[in-house]
Amino acid sequence: MSKTQPARGMRDFLPADVRRREYVIGVIREVYERYGFEPLETPAVENIETLLGKYGEEGNQLIFKILKRGEHEKSGEADLALRYDLTVPLARVVAHYRGKLPSPIKRYQIQPVWRADRPGRGRFREFYQCDVDIVGLHSMVIEAQLCAAAGEALSRLGFTNFTIRLNHREVLTGLLDKAGISPDKHDHALIALDKLDKKGRDGVKKEFAERGIEEDAGNELLTFFERITELEHSANVFVDENIEVERERRNGAILGRLVEFIEDHEIGTQGIDELRLILKFAAANGIAAQIKVDPSLARGLSYYTGAIMEINVPDLAGSLGGGGRYDNLIGMFLEQDIPACGFSLGLERIIVVMTEREMFPPTLVSSSADILVTIWGEEGKEPVEESITHSIALARELRASGLRVDLDLEPTRGGWYGYTRERRIPFFTVIRSEQRERGEVTLVDMREDKPQDEKIERERVVMTVLEKLNRQSQ
Amino acid sequence: MSKTQPARGMRDFLPADVRRREYVIGVIREVYERYGFEPLETPAVENIETLLGKYGEEGNQLIFKILKRGEHEKSGEADLALRYDLTVPLARVVAHYRGKLPSPIKRYQIQPVWRADRPGRGRFREFYQCDVDIVGLHSMVIEAQLCAAAGEALSRLGFTNFTIRLNHREVLTGLLDKAGISPDKHDHALIALDKLDKKGRDGVKKEFAERGIEEDAGNELLTFFERITELEHSANVFVDENIEVERERRNGAILGRLVEFIEDHEIGTQGIDELRLILKFAAANGIAAQIKVDPSLARGLSYYTGAIMEINVPDLAGSLGGGGRYDNLIGMFLEQDIPACGFSLGLERIIVVMTEREMFPPTLVSSSADILVTIWGEEGKEPVEESITHSIALARELRASGLRVDLDLEPTRGGWYGYTRERRIPFFTVIRSEQRERGEVTLVDMREDKPQDEKIERERVVMTVLEKLNRQSQ
Repeated sequence: MSKTQPARGMRDFLPADVRRREYVIGVIREVYERYGFEPLETPAVENIETLLGKYGEEGNQLIFKILKRGEHEKSGEADLALRYDLTVPLARVVAHYRGKLPSPIKRYQIQPVWRADRPGRGRFREFYQCDVDIVGLHSMVIEAQLCAAAGEALSRLGFTNFTIRLNHREVLTGLLDKAGISPDKHDHALIALDKLDKKGRDGVKKEFAERGIEEDAGNELLTFFERITELEHSANVFVDENIEVERERRNGAILGRLVEFIEDHEIGTQGIDELRLILKFAAANGIAAQIKVDPSLARGLSYYTGAIMEINVPDLAGSLGGGGRYDNLIGMFLEQDIPACGFSLGLERIIVVMTEREMFPPTLVSSSADILVTIWGEEGKEPVEESITHSIALARELRASGLRVDLDLEPTRGGWYGYTRERRIPFFTVIRSEQRERGEVTLVDMREDKPQDEKIERERVVMTVLEKLNRQSQ
Repeated sequence: MSKTQPARGMRDFLPADVRRREYVIGVIREVYERYGFEPLETPAVENIETLLGKYGEEGNQLIFKILKRGEHEKSGEADLALRYDLTVPLARVVAHYRGKLPSPIKRYQIQPVWRADRPGRGRFREFYQCDVDIVGLHSMVIEAQLCAAAGEALSRLGFTNFTIRLNHREVLTGLLDKAGISPDKHDHALIALDKLDKKGRDGVKKEFAERGIEEDAGNELLTFFERITELEHSANVFVDENIEVERERRNGAILGRLVEFIEDHEIGTQGIDELRLILKFAAANGIAAQIKVDPSLARGLSYYTGAIMEINVPDLAGSLGGGGRYDNLIGMFLEQDIPACGFSLGLERIIVVMTEREMFPPTLVSSSADILVTIWGEEGKEPVEESITHSIALARELRASGLRVDLDLEPTRGGWYGYTRERRIPFFTVIRSEQRERGEVTLVDMREDKPQDEKIERERVVMTVLEKLNRQSQ
């Protein structure tokens, strides 16, 4: 391994990478701002006690720990650690600035986190998280707003056809109770159920057995889900213009089945009521066609307490983001429950998919500048200086009109075609000595396979380039 | 110390802070892009060998070291470390992607670095650096471009009247040699000289003696600088419109004094020639009036090999940025010299000064949204849901026109004046039940001391708000 490689599981972002990342972050940020969310940033480094014990035993192992200064070489004591997620820092901020921050808190946070995980394809030790949360209220308007905002961000990035799957922890509790699964086996049942898609009914049945779930109860549950799947697949052909109506009809039917099954289960019924409200408010947000009630959605994290959601795209395994309500977590430093609901977009995943599917605007990553201004390499010293200052002045003028201008840094007499082609710079200028004297510039247009050049007056260069790029002077 | 505080020397950035930082970074980034620089990002964490030994003994002590995973609790061994500056990562990237990156490399990088320094007023353990560098060429066009770009960034941020002080390491060598200071005392002499402003002639003279610099040589040097100062202060009154001419005249006079003093000193003479070229190219860049040749500028870092520069603002001790040529550093991982020249803006300093002097656009930090859409708190359940969906739909429409919209998350019957005032949201809407039925909205304008409210048709809300804000629908 070369000594100049980035550390294991970490990445350098070269210009095209940074532009892609900035573009995605910029779109998400703009959408979240329009929804009235405000930005928060916390330090990369936290006191180690802030993080330890917050992510379970496995999480503890994956936290990067920083040596205490001074005697560190001897004791190996760590007093600081790298941010592991954006939720614990949010909880710390909520506790620390209580009374100073407006309530409810509507914040988004897009920052890197670090995990000492085994690196693998698409899994890094430094990666960005992109969280949006509302803290301080229990209102289903929130769930609907989060779904709308995350959905709009994906739409604006060019994702079409995504589905926001929606479920509710309390509905799951109702289902499991009513099927006859004892409460101490609920977590086991959910872990197994999560694999229904991949393993099928028989696979899950087997896992139920391994996890000590009573056969009758397991079967009842599986039968329920099978019927939901049938319902979902029935009459799968419908007219596009009615997709919204069709989606609402199906969601209604699934809620009906849940009501039938859950009957008088109190918590489960509350959950169904909340789902109903979320659907209603989501429809007012214009995203009725995207939301799909999916009673099999469990989401691994045990801290969710209410609605849970996940965004999926057809032809793509896994999700582009997910979230839910977690009313028991944000108050950890205050030792009280504080209602909270959040959504996390899978930023790294989104960037990978957009790159693979070439979803970035073509102009974005391709060019390092709008124009290259070359410096004519004359012989003798004084004339060269004149050539340089002449080109600098032209570059300055072009820049002042809002263009991104690459100025050659040394006089040259060629090599410009390769240089601009490599960087996909659409134009370059050449000003030979005699042209300089008579106020003329050669403008080369590299946008076609065969470069076009034309001689134009020095005064008309800025205007001509702006016209060719269809831009206005700024 | 509260357990919810950020770690020592680190900061949480609440919304107004983030907006300020993003604004400054955005302006700098845009200016650098216009100059044809491209963004680079490197990981926060580097292999420890990449950093150790690169910043001297003191630097080594200030590097945050990360425990190796696995046996770390026993051995205390560190294998990773937090980024300490942006120059060593650039050197690593230059070595690692050689042949893959275009040459010359023109990159900017704006990222945090971490130093286990003693925190103090304006000194943090996590802070942003903002570097722009050109690697691979020795051409004075570069020095001029860097001065122009950094200067333009500061201008665009609202700094007027700044001065870019310019000097040259080889000129300093010539001065010290010619004054008769032995080469092994050059560093000492520069350290002492750097304090001429603060300590005055006698103070520096005393320090010269303490540092073992021969009295005659020290006096000759001080006399030279005294004359430069006299020259600088003579005829200090000049007409504003001639500031450029006046500045060029003075710079010419100072260069003349340097030529006289340095005489036939070969390296020093080369340095003077380079300064002359930089001035010429800077003039073509339109920044002749800002650049001031200052032979007393030394800049502490010993790695500079050519031109050095520093940006100062009147009424502000210290600088807002600085840089220079360092041809011996970037090739550290390739064990060869690679020419390089860079400029670093003092981002944290700039933000502090702009905050203190209220230089941010007033609209930037003040408001979390353009409008608040409230939800009328009706009695009974069904009507409330109608009220909610009605408000959600209005919020959605306003958002679609490009506005930042804060939606109340629960039905309320008041408290809006305080809420919008606290967040400086300029408008809010109220829709009572009977208004909803007849398609009417109350729009409250909070921009004046005494809020104004008017009843308008539901259909006209978006247009009215856009008009009042002088905005166009997007």
